[in-house]
Amino acid sequence: MSRYAIGIDYGTESGRVMLTSIETGEEAAWALIPYPNGVLETALPTGEKLGHDWALQDPRDYLHVVEQGVPQVLKQSGIKPEQVVGIGTDFTACTMLPTLAEGTPLCTLPEFETRPHAWVKLWKHHAAQPQADKINRIGKKRKEKALEMYNWAHSSEWFFAKALQIVEEDFAVYEKAGKLIEAADWIVWQLTGNERRNECTAGYKDMWLKGDGFPSKDFFAALDPRMANIVEEKLATTFYPLGSRAGGLTAAMAAKTGLLEGTPVAVGHIDAHAGVPACGVTGPGVLVMIMGTSLCHMLMANERRIVEGVAGVVEGGIVPGYYGYEAGQAAVGDLYGWFFKAFGVKPDEITAKAAALRPGQSGLVALDWWNGNRSVLMNADLSGVLVGATLSTGPHEIYRALIEATAFGTLTVIRAFEREGIQINRLMACGGLPEKSPLVMQIFADVTNRTIELPRSLQGSGLGAAMHGAVSGGAFANIAEAAGKMGGASGQAYVPNPEANRIYTQLYEQYLALHDWFGRGGTDIMKRLKAIRAGA
Amino acid sequence: MSRYAIGIDYGTESGRVMLTSIETGEEAAWALIPYPNGVLETALPTGEKLGHDWALQDPRDYLHVVEQGVPQVLKQSGIKPEQVVGIGTDFTACTMLPTLAEGTPLCTLPEFETRPHAWVKLWKHHAAQPQADKINRIGKKRKEKALEMYNWAHSSEWFFAKALQIVEEDFAVYEKAGKLIEAADWIVWQLTGNERRNECTAGYKDMWLKGDGFPSKDFFAALDPRMANIVEEKLATTFYPLGSRAGGLTAAMAAKTGLLEGTPVAVGHIDAHAGVPACGVTGPGVLVMIMGTSLCHMLMANERRIVEGVAGVVEGGIVPGYYGYEAGQAAVGDLYGWFFKAFGVKPDEITAKAAALRPGQSGLVALDWWNGNRSVLMNADLSGVLVGATLSTGPHEIYRALIEATAFGTLTVIRAFEREGIQINRLMACGGLPEKSPLVMQIFADVTNRTIELPRSLQGSGLGAAMHGAVSGGAFANIAEAAGKMGGASGQAYVPNPEANRIYTQLYEQYLALHDWFGRGGTDIMKRLKAIRAGA
Repeated sequence: MSRYAIGIDYGTESGRVMLTSIETGEEAAWALIPYPNGVLETALPTGEKLGHDWALQDPRDYLHVVEQGVPQVLKQSGIKPEQVVGIGTDFTACTMLPTLAEGTPLCTLPEFETRPHAWVKLWKHHAAQPQADKINRIGKKRKEKALEMYNWAHSSEWFFAKALQIVEEDFAVYEKAGKLIEAADWIVWQLTGNERRNECTAGYKDMWLKGDGFPSKDFFAALDPRMANIVEEKLATTFYPLGSRAGGLTAAMAAKTGLLEGTPVAVGHIDAHAGVPACGVTGPGVLVMIMGTSLCHMLMANERRIVEGVAGVVEGGIVPGYYGYEAGQAAVGDLYGWFFKAFGVKPDEITAKAAALRPGQSGLVALDWWNGNRSVLMNADLSGVLVGATLSTGPHEIYRALIEATAFGTLTVIRAFEREGIQINRLMACGGLPEKSPLVMQIFADVTNRTIELPRSLQGSGLGAAMHGAVSGGAFANIAEAAGKMGGASGQAYVPNPEANRIYTQLYEQYLALHDWFGRGGTDIMKRLKAIRAGA
Repeated sequence: MSRYAIGIDYGTESGRVMLTSIETGEEAAWALIPYPNGVLETALPTGEKLGHDWALQDPRDYLHVVEQGVPQVLKQSGIKPEQVVGIGTDFTACTMLPTLAEGTPLCTLPEFETRPHAWVKLWKHHAAQPQADKINRIGKKRKEKALEMYNWAHSSEWFFAKALQIVEEDFAVYEKAGKLIEAADWIVWQLTGNERRNECTAGYKDMWLKGDGFPSKDFFAALDPRMANIVEEKLATTFYPLGSRAGGLTAAMAAKTGLLEGTPVAVGHIDAHAGVPACGVTGPGVLVMIMGTSLCHMLMANERRIVEGVAGVVEGGIVPGYYGYEAGQAAVGDLYGWFFKAFGVKPDEITAKAAALRPGQSGLVALDWWNGNRSVLMNADLSGVLVGATLSTGPHEIYRALIEATAFGTLTVIRAFEREGIQINRLMACGGLPEKSPLVMQIFADVTNRTIELPRSLQGSGLGAAMHGAVSGGAFANIAEAAGKMGGASGQAYVPNPEANRIYTQLYEQYLALHDWFGRGGTDIMKRLKAIRAGA
């Protein structure tokens, strides 16, 4: 009897349920279930208007994905419930919500459904920027270790910025909440009846340090006296390694899904991080690049180092036993998309022309900071630069310079790791871009002078979730064993061209000179331009 | 009996003949005569191929303009030959040719017509760059005053670079030539039978300094021993002030044109310079901007100063009695044209959107060096820069930033003059752009914080030529008197907006920081990019 695991990948607009062979990693069936309420950016379903930069969700939509998607994949595949060895999930993060002590979301209570702060705050809810600024200001002043570990930069997307926004803007919601919880853990709670929080989201998004726990009561009191006891009153304090079993599927959930009661369910997971073992990467030396609108770099090492501009280093954050590092570039596919739109060109035509250019032939170099700089410099006030334009510069040359700039950005991240003695030997690329643009992949290989391999599965996060489900069900001793069977490389690879690399090495010197002048205090032109714009 | 003057404006593709009232400056008639052989860039009319960067012309085309155009304007207007008080011409420069001692162009001799160096070298013939480099290298080493007066930069467009190219590449042409002469002076010679060279082209393009004359024999010998005696053997050494009479129309020319024999003809003139008195500007304090594909700044002062990046300061070079300064920006209309083409947008639509922006709103600043920097920095290796792009940056914002950058370029030139104590109180704009783009004009006014007036006539060079013709014919005592009648402002003006200027003052600080870092040795990125491109 063939055995299968279920992976449920919770994205921004929809959830994707995959039924996957644990012998081969192949998908037997999958179902994409859009969230009925999608992303709430302008108003609640009850009509209340939302402010600028808000992004909420309805937690019932997450249950809808399970209840619709699981029966569909079972039906499509004809696979029997007893063949399913485990269930894993992965989630966007930090996506968080207030619930009663037993897990009921506040937004489902009639007396709270009209209050925006009672709903799920999605990862891209950016309205807590003032609270993030406050956390960073006070945290730096107090020299909080939990801030230092994140390079003194708590993002507005993270847990305590969002929690502080609730405290400051709707204290009644905060008071009513028995729990403030990551959606990644909440969905597992709903599946199993157990609140079993995972180490990954807690480590990357919630200022939780293995061994040390959360920051002190004094720190929270300094942020707002009303949240001094947030840890004791609202948060779980035990966290579980990735791949561990949160519990078995409840009878109610079994009835709704058609699965067996007690089917093992793994603890929650962040989507990007789940994709790493799906690529077959379960240890140090390989940088996994999740390449889409932005680029997420995932890397493991045997030690914790402070790497410039790396926002998160979490023990066991990617695979238990290693320190997991996360870096990223804020605009990659988004930058190419900007170019296509601004220049009114068709991607296919311009790509063919850009591909025909030799490295260095355009005479251009760009800084890829169209959406700020997320890694190494960590400065959202930085902006895009193009240098070297002449009257004969064509759009295809600019496009190629933008691709090269994003590759230089990744090389800069690689070098930041190497400066701290963390070696990167190979690259692995997943996400939408590797499939869409061989030109982008070849330029990344030529610029970084490293072979880039592609994984067998393009649905890395969901496959990774299924793998963790299989581990939690005991089908594998650990995630490395699961990766050996279910994940890994496709055999397709981009190999660096030495001559191209020779020229890119010269171009990178120019990139770096610009990078350091604009980004390391040579000038504050970009900040001033933003200030002038804000005044205009 | 109303009196008229004829102005003949020799452009790059055609000549324009204007018959103009000397009482009002109004055109009674005009004729545009394209050059039958146009610009020879790839081959001679006899089929011989030309190299990269060559640009030649056929001197017979200049006569064709006279012979076709003058009869046309007489016929159109019904004006009688005796009503014409004088003829003036203006020419592109340095546009030069080899002739026999009596003026016959070598390219019209059957034995020379297949030799490219026997033809007219047009101003934009750039193939003499190696020769210009040699002149600058040797001139600097020898500390030649004639080089110092041009900020140590003899352009490849200028007379001796072109002459040296003939010496080096086709010595037989050089040997055969009785004269090497500016086309501006050659056409006057053909009209009058007198070789009367003008001080303007000689001063700006031919290293001739009033009082000092040409550089020494030693200098020319150092360039090439075969051209040691170029001054004595090939050049006239007497030069005449602008507006002076070269002579009267020959009988042969009178017969061909329908004008009276002996009609006074003024000495030659450079086109841009002739446009200045046409604007009514005949003394210090007013910067005339000739705004087209590039931008030419013309200014007069009572003294000679070494102004950073000003290529030419010529005593009497614009109006007798004043020092005439010429500066310029290498790409203005050309930069806007590049933008329209690269972004595939229609000028009208994008202009409306760009005009709706407030200063500073785009968050962008650019360096307008798409065609190098011609004034202040004088470095052709510099290239264009755009800073401040974000994912929400629209094409109309980039367009506006490019316009602002060209205005900042002009402000930088104005400040270079002011640093040397040469005041600029008002601006006057002529050329094609003022007519085409009110947005450009308003931004130039706001950035420079100076009122910009437009002249009555948009055909400034031809009108200026006619004015000099009238002066040479004795109708006016001098060019100032002619300008009072025939030239001047239209009354249309762009007045700076103080609030816009306040913001542009802040933006200009950012422009200047970029200008100095990229252009004054903070980095050599641009030079390196060109070197990498050359290697690619």
